[in-house]
Amino acid sequence: MKIGIYPGSFDPITNGHLDVINRARNIFDKVIVAVARNAAKQPLFSSEERVKLIEENLVDRPNISVIAFEGLIVDLAKQTQAVALIRGLRAVSDFEHEFQMAQMNRHLDDSIETIFLMPNEQFFFTSSNLVKQVFKFTDRERRLIPANVHAALSKKFGHEGSSETHIGNTVV
Amino acid sequence: MKIGIYPGSFDPITNGHLDVINRARNIFDKVIVAVARNAAKQPLFSSEERVKLIEENLVDRPNISVIAFEGLIVDLAKQTQAVALIRGLRAVSDFEHEFQMAQMNRHLDDSIETIFLMPNEQFFFTSSNLVKQVFKFTDRERRLIPANVHAALSKKFGHEGSSETHIGNTVV
Amino acid sequence: MKIGIYPGSFDPITNGHLDVINRARNIFDKVIVAVARNAAKQPLFSSEERVKLIEENLVDRPNISVIAFEGLIVDLAKQTQAVALIRGLRAVSDFEHEFQMAQMNRHLDDSIETIFLMPNEQFFFTSSNLVKQVFKFTDRERRLIPANVHAALSKKFGHEGSSETHIGNTVV
Amino acid sequence: MKIGIYPGSFDPITNGHLDVINRARNIFDKVIVAVARNAAKQPLFSSEERVKLIEENLVDRPNISVIAFEGLIVDLAKQTQAVALIRGLRAVSDFEHEFQMAQMNRHLDDSIETIFLMPNEQFFFTSSNLVKQVFKFTDRERRLIPANVHAALSKKFGHEGSSETHIGNTVV
Amino acid sequence: MKIGIYPGSFDPITNGHLDVINRARNIFDKVIVAVARNAAKQPLFSSEERVKLIEENLVDRPNISVIAFEGLIVDLAKQTQAVALIRGLRAVSDFEHEFQMAQMNRHLDDSIETIFLMPNEQFFFTSSNLVKQVFKFTDRERRLIPANVHAALSKKFGHEGSSETHIGNTVV
Amino acid sequence: MKIGIYPGSFDPITNGHLDVINRARNIFDKVIVAVARNAAKQPLFSSEERVKLIEENLVDRPNISVIAFEGLIVDLAKQTQAVALIRGLRAVSDFEHEFQMAQMNRHLDDSIETIFLMPNEQFFFTSSNLVKQVFKFTDRERRLIPANVHAALSKKFGHEGSSETHIGNTVV
Repeated sequence: MKIGIYPGSFDPITNGHLDVINRARNIFDKVIVAVARNAAKQPLFSSEERVKLIEENLVDRPNISVIAFEGLIVDLAKQTQAVALIRGLRAVSDFEHEFQMAQMNRHLDDSIETIFLMPNEQFFFTSSNLVKQVFKFTDRERRLIPANVHAALSKKFGHEGSSETHIGNTVV
Repeated sequence: MKIGIYPGSFDPITNGHLDVINRARNIFDKVIVAVARNAAKQPLFSSEERVKLIEENLVDRPNISVIAFEGLIVDLAKQTQAVALIRGLRAVSDFEHEFQMAQMNRHLDDSIETIFLMPNEQFFFTSSNLVKQVFKFTDRERRLIPANVHAALSKKFGHEGSSETHIGNTVV
Repeated sequence: MKIGIYPGSFDPITNGHLDVINRARNIFDKVIVAVARNAAKQPLFSSEERVKLIEENLVDRPNISVIAFEGLIVDLAKQTQAVALIRGLRAVSDFEHEFQMAQMNRHLDDSIETIFLMPNEQFFFTSSNLVKQVFKFTDRERRLIPANVHAALSKKFGHEGSSETHIGNTVV
Repeated sequence: MKIGIYPGSFDPITNGHLDVINRARNIFDKVIVAVARNAAKQPLFSSEERVKLIEENLVDRPNISVIAFEGLIVDLAKQTQAVALIRGLRAVSDFEHEFQMAQMNRHLDDSIETIFLMPNEQFFFTSSNLVKQVFKFTDRERRLIPANVHAALSKKFGHEGSSETHIGNTVV
Repeated sequence: MKIGIYPGSFDPITNGHLDVINRARNIFDKVIVAVARNAAKQPLFSSEERVKLIEENLVDRPNISVIAFEGLIVDLAKQTQAVALIRGLRAVSDFEHEFQMAQMNRHLDDSIETIFLMPNEQFFFTSSNLVKQVFKFTDRERRLIPANVHAALSKKFGHEGSSETHIGNTVV
Repeated sequence: MKIGIYPGSFDPITNGHLDVINRARNIFDKVIVAVARNAAKQPLFSSEERVKLIEENLVDRPNISVIAFEGLIVDLAKQTQAVALIRGLRAVSDFEHEFQMAQMNRHLDDSIETIFLMPNEQFFFTSSNLVKQVFKFTDRERRLIPANVHAALSKKFGHEGSSETHIGNTVV
C-alpha cells in the first residue's frame, strides 16, 4: 500500500487544497493530510479548527486521514510509512521555495520522495493568505473556498454572512 | 469617458510610479491615483503625506486626481465608474503577486478589468522599499525619486539635504 | 475615441484570444484585431483564413474590426490612430518576450503604449501551437477553441469531426 | 497496482532521466518509460536505439518496462492502465511548458494525473540537447550520462572514445 | 591588484557561501568577506560570532580577509579600493532582488561593479534561513554547513550534538 | 595578470554587449572578446565582419582584443590563460540557459569560472535577434546599436540609411 502525505498549514483549507487532495487519491492508496501545528506566523485558526475544517470536506473518503503535527515532516512520513510528500505547485514563485524544501527533506531522509501536483487552473492563483486579506473587507468571495470555510471566515471577521453586506470601507 | 484607477501604497511615490501615471494618461480619459490608507506594514508617510507628495508632482494635469482609500479597490472602482485598475509591471516576482490580485479582484467584481503597463526601463528595478532602505544611510539617490520626495525622505531620516554628506557608517 | 490594437498571428484564434478581445472592449472605444500576415514560421492558415475565423466569432460587435497587416505594428497603430497595443499576458516565459517587444516598440514610436491583459485562468496555458500539436493526433480538444476553429482544424488534419474517433496512434 | 508512465524523447537518456526513473519506482508499483517515436525535431538516435540505451541501464529491475510510442500519451496511459504521467521538473523555464502539457493532457483525459519529480541537484541543468552540443566538440563529459550513452555519442560524433583526445577546435 | 568584496549577513556561513568565496579567489587578487553588522532581521549570531565562524574556515588563505561593516557597501568598497561586489546567484527569485540591489549600488557609485557567481549545484537551494529552520527540530543536516557552524547551531538550539538525537517532535 | 573572456555570437554587436565589455574592463586586466565562428543558426554577418564591427568600437583600448574561435570555449580559455568566462545576464529566461552553460563548462574544465555581469538597464531587453527582426522593416532603431552596426544592418537589409524612410508595410 502506497501512502502519500500532504503537509501544509491549511489556514484555512481552500478549494485549491481540496483539488490537490482529490488528485492525490488517484495516485496513492492512502493520503494523510498533515496540518502543521505551529506555522511560521500566527495562524488565524487553531490546528484543531484547521483539522476540523478539512475533515468536514472529506466525509465518506475512507482512504484519507487528517492529522495535526509538529516537528519534521520527514519524521512523520517515516512513522506513517509514507513513500512521498505531496505538494501543490502553482506559480513560479512557489517553485523555488518548494524545491528548497524538497532538497532539504531529501538531505534529512532520502527515502522520502516529494511529488508535485498541479491544481486545476481555477485555483492557480488561490492562496489562504489572499483569501484572509479579502475577508478583512468582505465575505463576497465564495468560489475559492468551501462553504464551511466561508462560514468560519465570516464569523472570524464579523461579517453577517450575507454576500452583499456593505463592509464599511471608507473612500475619501 | 473611460476612467482608470491606479492603486498602491505609494510610500513614497517614485519616478517609476510617475512614469506609469503618465503612460496611463494616454489610454484613459481620466486617471485616479488611489492611495491605500492602511498598507499592510506600518507606512513611513501618513496617507495625507503620501497624497500630497503625489499631487505636488501632478500640477496642471486636470485629468488626474489623487485620493486616499480604505476597503476593496473594486468597490472604489465601481463608485468612481472606473473601467480598469492600472498596475505597473516590472519584474517576474511582481508578476505573480499581481496576477493573484487581478484574479481575486475579478472574483469580487468581474466588470472591472486589470491592465498592466511596463514602466520605462530606467525604473525597472525601482521600489519604494529599496529607496527607503538606502535613505537610512544616505540621501545620495536622486534619480529614482522626484525632488519633493527626496526632500521628505532626507527630513524623515535626518540627512542635511546635501547629496555628499557622510552618513556615519562604521567599518571595522 | 480611444482605439486599441490587438496584434498577433492568430494561427488560429483560441478562446484565450477571444477572452482578451472581450476584456479589451471594456477599456477601449474601438478594438482592432491585427493579424500578422507573415508570421515568423509558416502559418497553418492563410491570413485570409485567420481573419475569417476571427470575424465569425465577432458578429454583432460593431466596435471591433479585424485586419491583416504587414510591417511594423507601431506604424499600423499610427495610421489607425490607436493609442495602445494590447497583449494577453499568460505565463512568465511570455512576460520577457513581451517586454522585449514592448520596449522595442517604444523605441520605434514612443507615443504608442503597450498594455497587458490577463486572460481568464481557464486559458492561462492555452496556445495556438499546442492546440495544433494535439490536432495532429485527435480532434478531442473542444474547450480551448471556438467551434469554427475546431471544424477548420479537423478539416486541415483530416479528422472526421467526431470527438471520439480513434486517430490511429500506434503503441508498441 | 499503481502504474506510472514516464514519457519523453530520451534522445539520448541522461543520468537526470535515470534519477527520475529511480525516484518514480518508490512511488509506483510499476513504471513504464515511454519513448516518443517521432519527437518534434529530427532525433539523433532512432527510437529503437533510444529504447535500447535506456534498457541497458535498467537490468534487474522487473517493475520497469520501456516502450516506444506514437500518438497521444493519454491514450497510451489508458491502454496501459496507468494512473499518472511522470515528469522531471528542473528549471523555471521547464515549468511552464510542463504545465501547458499537463493542462492539455487533462483536457484530453481527466482521469490521468501528471506528477512532477525533482531530479537530484547534480542533474538540475542537464539536458539531452546540451550534451549533444558538447559532443560535437569533445567526449570529455562523462558525469551527466551513463557509460553506454557516452560510447554511443562518441561513435555518432566520431570521437575515439578517449576522454582526453584533442578534438581539433581551431582558435584564430 | 584587483580586490573583490563579498557582502552578506552570513548568519551563519554555509558551504554555499564558502564555495562562492573559493571561486572568487580565482578571479580577484584579494577577497574581502564583509559581514553586515545589522541585518534587516534580528540575527541569530552576533556579527563577531559570524566573523569568527567564517574565519575558522579560511585558515591559510592569506588573500582573504573578513570584516564586519555598517553602512553602504559601496562606501566600504571605495575605502578598501575594491573594484567589484561579489554575489552568489542561485535561484530565479534571488535574481531580481540581486538586480535591484546591483542597480541601486550603481546609482550610488557607478565605479563599483557587481559580479555574480554561480555556486556548485549542490548548494543551489541552500540558504542560511532554511538551515536555521531545520535546526529548530534536528541537527541532522551536515552537508550544507561546515563543521564549526554545525556545532554552533547545535549549541544555540540545544541539541546534544548527536546527529541521531530524537528532537521531541510530537505527532498527533 | 587576470584575463577574462567574453564569448558570444555577436551577430551583430549591440550597445548592450559594449556595455558589458566596458564593465569587464574594470574587473580584469585584459578582456578577450571571443566571436563564435559557427553559431547554431546561420549568422547574418560572417565571423570576420562580426570581429570588425566590434573592433571599430574598441579603438584606443589596448587591454581588449577580439578573436574568432571554433570549438569549446573552455579550451580557448585555457590556451589564453584566462581565469573566467564573462556573460551578460539580462532577463530570467537568460538565466537558466546561462546556468546550464556554466555548469557544463565547469564539468569540462573546473578551473575556469563563469561570472555574470548586469548590463545597464537601458539594454536590459536588447538582443541581436530582435534588432535584426526590426531591420527587416525599418532602420529607425538607433539607440540599441552602435553607428557602424546601424550602417551595416541598413546595407544588409537594403535601407537607404535614412531613419524616416517608409519601408513599404502594407496594411489591409
